[in-house]
Amino acid sequence: MSEEKLSQLKTIIAEVADLTYASALLGWDQQVNMPPGGAEARGNQLATLQTIAHAKLTAPEVGQLLEDLTLFASQLDPDSDDARYIKVAKRNFTKQIKVPGEWISEFAQVTTMAHQVWAKARAENNFALFQPFLVRIMELRRRYADLFSPFDHVYDPLLDDFEPGLKTADIKDIFNRLRPRQVELIKAITSRPQVENRFLYQPYDAQKQWDFGVEVITKMGHDWEHSRQDKAAHPFTTNFGVGDVRITTRIHPEYLGTGLFGTMHEAGHASYELGIDPRLDRGALAGGASLAIHESQSRMWENLVGRSFPFWQHFYPRLQEIFPTQLGNVALEAFYKGINRVQPSLIRVEADEATYNLHIMLRLELEIALMEGSVEVNNLPEAWNSRFQEYLGITPPNDAQGVLQDVHWSGGMVGYFSTYALGNIISAQLWERLNHDIPDLADQIRRGEFSDWLGWLRSHIHCYGSKYEPQELVERATGSRIDSDPYMRYLTEKYSQIYGL
Amino acid sequence: MSEEKLSQLKTIIAEVADLTYASALLGWDQQVNMPPGGAEARGNQLATLQTIAHAKLTAPEVGQLLEDLTLFASQLDPDSDDARYIKVAKRNFTKQIKVPGEWISEFAQVTTMAHQVWAKARAENNFALFQPFLVRIMELRRRYADLFSPFDHVYDPLLDDFEPGLKTADIKDIFNRLRPRQVELIKAITSRPQVENRFLYQPYDAQKQWDFGVEVITKMGHDWEHSRQDKAAHPFTTNFGVGDVRITTRIHPEYLGTGLFGTMHEAGHASYELGIDPRLDRGALAGGASLAIHESQSRMWENLVGRSFPFWQHFYPRLQEIFPTQLGNVALEAFYKGINRVQPSLIRVEADEATYNLHIMLRLELEIALMEGSVEVNNLPEAWNSRFQEYLGITPPNDAQGVLQDVHWSGGMVGYFSTYALGNIISAQLWERLNHDIPDLADQIRRGEFSDWLGWLRSHIHCYGSKYEPQELVERATGSRIDSDPYMRYLTEKYSQIYGL
Repeated sequence: MSEEKLSQLKTIIAEVADLTYASALLGWDQQVNMPPGGAEARGNQLATLQTIAHAKLTAPEVGQLLEDLTLFASQLDPDSDDARYIKVAKRNFTKQIKVPGEWISEFAQVTTMAHQVWAKARAENNFALFQPFLVRIMELRRRYADLFSPFDHVYDPLLDDFEPGLKTADIKDIFNRLRPRQVELIKAITSRPQVENRFLYQPYDAQKQWDFGVEVITKMGHDWEHSRQDKAAHPFTTNFGVGDVRITTRIHPEYLGTGLFGTMHEAGHASYELGIDPRLDRGALAGGASLAIHESQSRMWENLVGRSFPFWQHFYPRLQEIFPTQLGNVALEAFYKGINRVQPSLIRVEADEATYNLHIMLRLELEIALMEGSVEVNNLPEAWNSRFQEYLGITPPNDAQGVLQDVHWSGGMVGYFSTYALGNIISAQLWERLNHDIPDLADQIRRGEFSDWLGWLRSHIHCYGSKYEPQELVERATGSRIDSDPYMRYLTEKYSQIYGL
Repeated sequence: MSEEKLSQLKTIIAEVADLTYASALLGWDQQVNMPPGGAEARGNQLATLQTIAHAKLTAPEVGQLLEDLTLFASQLDPDSDDARYIKVAKRNFTKQIKVPGEWISEFAQVTTMAHQVWAKARAENNFALFQPFLVRIMELRRRYADLFSPFDHVYDPLLDDFEPGLKTADIKDIFNRLRPRQVELIKAITSRPQVENRFLYQPYDAQKQWDFGVEVITKMGHDWEHSRQDKAAHPFTTNFGVGDVRITTRIHPEYLGTGLFGTMHEAGHASYELGIDPRLDRGALAGGASLAIHESQSRMWENLVGRSFPFWQHFYPRLQEIFPTQLGNVALEAFYKGINRVQPSLIRVEADEATYNLHIMLRLELEIALMEGSVEVNNLPEAWNSRFQEYLGITPPNDAQGVLQDVHWSGGMVGYFSTYALGNIISAQLWERLNHDIPDLADQIRRGEFSDWLGWLRSHIHCYGSKYEPQELVERATGSRIDSDPYMRYLTEKYSQIYGL
């Protein structure tokens, strides 16, 4: 009987997965292919599919099945797939039914308008235009949090949507410990002579850049049988099942960094989805464990591997062969230093490895303060600018390059930013463990061998899908919960060598 | 009250349209982009979306709304959009609820297997392999027809799925009148010296072919704001709303005909969807009136315009400029004759304008005979070959190039073929009327002006969507019901000139 009910539950969730995957394809196509005239109809299609999926997932039948399965679940091995399946399904159901339809439609309306207004405000460098919309969004987000009261912190319910199980207190601890050390490191770096990277800014044939990116990720183990790459203005990765994962990239014809490291970043996201046990697909345990875990994979491909010296010992001769005019006279060491140049700058998406997390921490602190009410929206630009000066030593000359630079808040995505920094932190934890378990990892990479590396990630992270919450998954893989020490060790060692600290 | 019920009905049908458009995107992507690994998940997604759409469309609520709207509809102007909307919605509902779920799933199972077996049977030239599956498909199709009894002819319910309102007796009349005249014309042509077309079979750079095709259809009025073109192994057109119509093409690097005429053919299909009144979109009157009307548009772009002398008076100098080596020494008249060469051949999809319909009539007659039981599946190859000799003067050397050549029957598509020939017939009817209403049409085309031509089709055919059934639409546009005389006049005049009959 219980097996039958579990099977009924799985059938419903599988149908919801099909609808979600179909929506993902509609979204992918919208960014990759859709002619302008398709926008209105696409909005209708997405709304219809999402409404049907939400109705299916929050149907009383689902609640009844979950209730009927409580006893059955309690008798299973708590680490078994079925026990975890029921647990995650229950968690999702319990969260979703708390959100009333009126909130969802008001949120959709406000964020649709806010997104347009934000684009205008950024273009015109006019925060006042966006301000009333951000006020409404923060109100909506506080109302959203209240749906989940009681909570330890008003920011917890938001964070939980992106990082299941993680609390505001946890990330405050993590970041409070990290921030002063990272600020200090940057000060040390900027006191040293700067490294050269002008050679990256030259004409580089776009098709050759594309082909080299494909060559690199293919060697790193990217699985083309279950994937493809397209161009997109804002690169992203999406999937329609574990067997069909799409990456996108953007090539800058006069700067080498965008295409190459972007391609590796997205291939890192793809590696995660491609490595999930196919038996979990279309179920409650499908997909990655969280955005931070996802980001740990993309950042590892992009930075810990892609900006490492052994990696370029292998690939640089080939890159020089492809671009002899541009790189023929640039030595490997100079190239390596150039792609790792640290330069405090205004824009998050262009930030280097050493300064990136500070951009995130600033946003996280302001989000928390806005939710707590300790900072008002009308004081946000000042709060942004003073923190920016404190952390990065520069002050934005205007709001367009400051508080208005990111799309997230206009879309109502509050709680998202920290996942980027957590991803960096987790990537370094995994990297330490990887180097412990595979002592000759650097040599393997130097020889262009990536199968042990990818195999370790497959068996320690990827295969589990979202069976474990992020803290548990990290602990199982590394022996510790999320911890910024490995990340600081990584940064310190890397930049001490590059900048001679 | 009735307005409210109509609005409720329209909301349900709009959601079904969204699901259908989403399915169409899943199908488009499957043929254009999908990596091999995506196939299994894609099947699940399509099945789920189609099941939900079918359940929504056949829900008792829809039946109740339609019943409640009967009196209201009878009081409307019968030609009003709302009256037609209710009529078509009722027609679709009445048909769909007659088909039991068991039939649908058995049909899906049998045709999925049959398709694989057919591919093998064709590759191995082994009709016996496919025979038992075709027997089961014809049995299923007879059971399907029985769901709609009483009927005048067992083939009527099948035909009606593709050509609403058209009867088997109608198309028998049309084709019986056409066939002897077309057979006679071909005999006359083949008694004359053959024209030359070897110049079409040379290396033609694929990208240049693609670009020229784009240039041609752009000039013909193709609307890129609401469309895009991609490559596909088996070209087709699909759409996800009137604002997003996708065409596909296939380029043969050593034959000029495939890409160019294929691109025009699909752009003709697209012109129809792009011209439908946007107010009809997502409703019962969205989409073209029938497959035959659709084919009349594609055939007009491809043949009546695309293989006409005035058209090439305009475009040939440009084509020669692009391919000087291949066409520099081929005169316009020789080129025109070459692209219109008549040659009875074995394969339908490669047939010329004069012989194409005979391929169709043969299939139609055999389908009808199979449904009536006057031909048995095990006698089908003989029946095929003897008719082929009679109509086209040649006998297929094997079944792979004969009865096994088309995919349609393996997919259960019985009743489809006639729409190709009806499309040719209707295209010539519209063409006569067009030349009557725009007396200088040939001169306009010679000057590369296509706006009057396309405008006429927009206002006489496209804008109505599926408001009118095919016979009524043709009569409104031309003053006559579907009639093969204009087509015979067109063929006779064209080939008399080319072959000096």
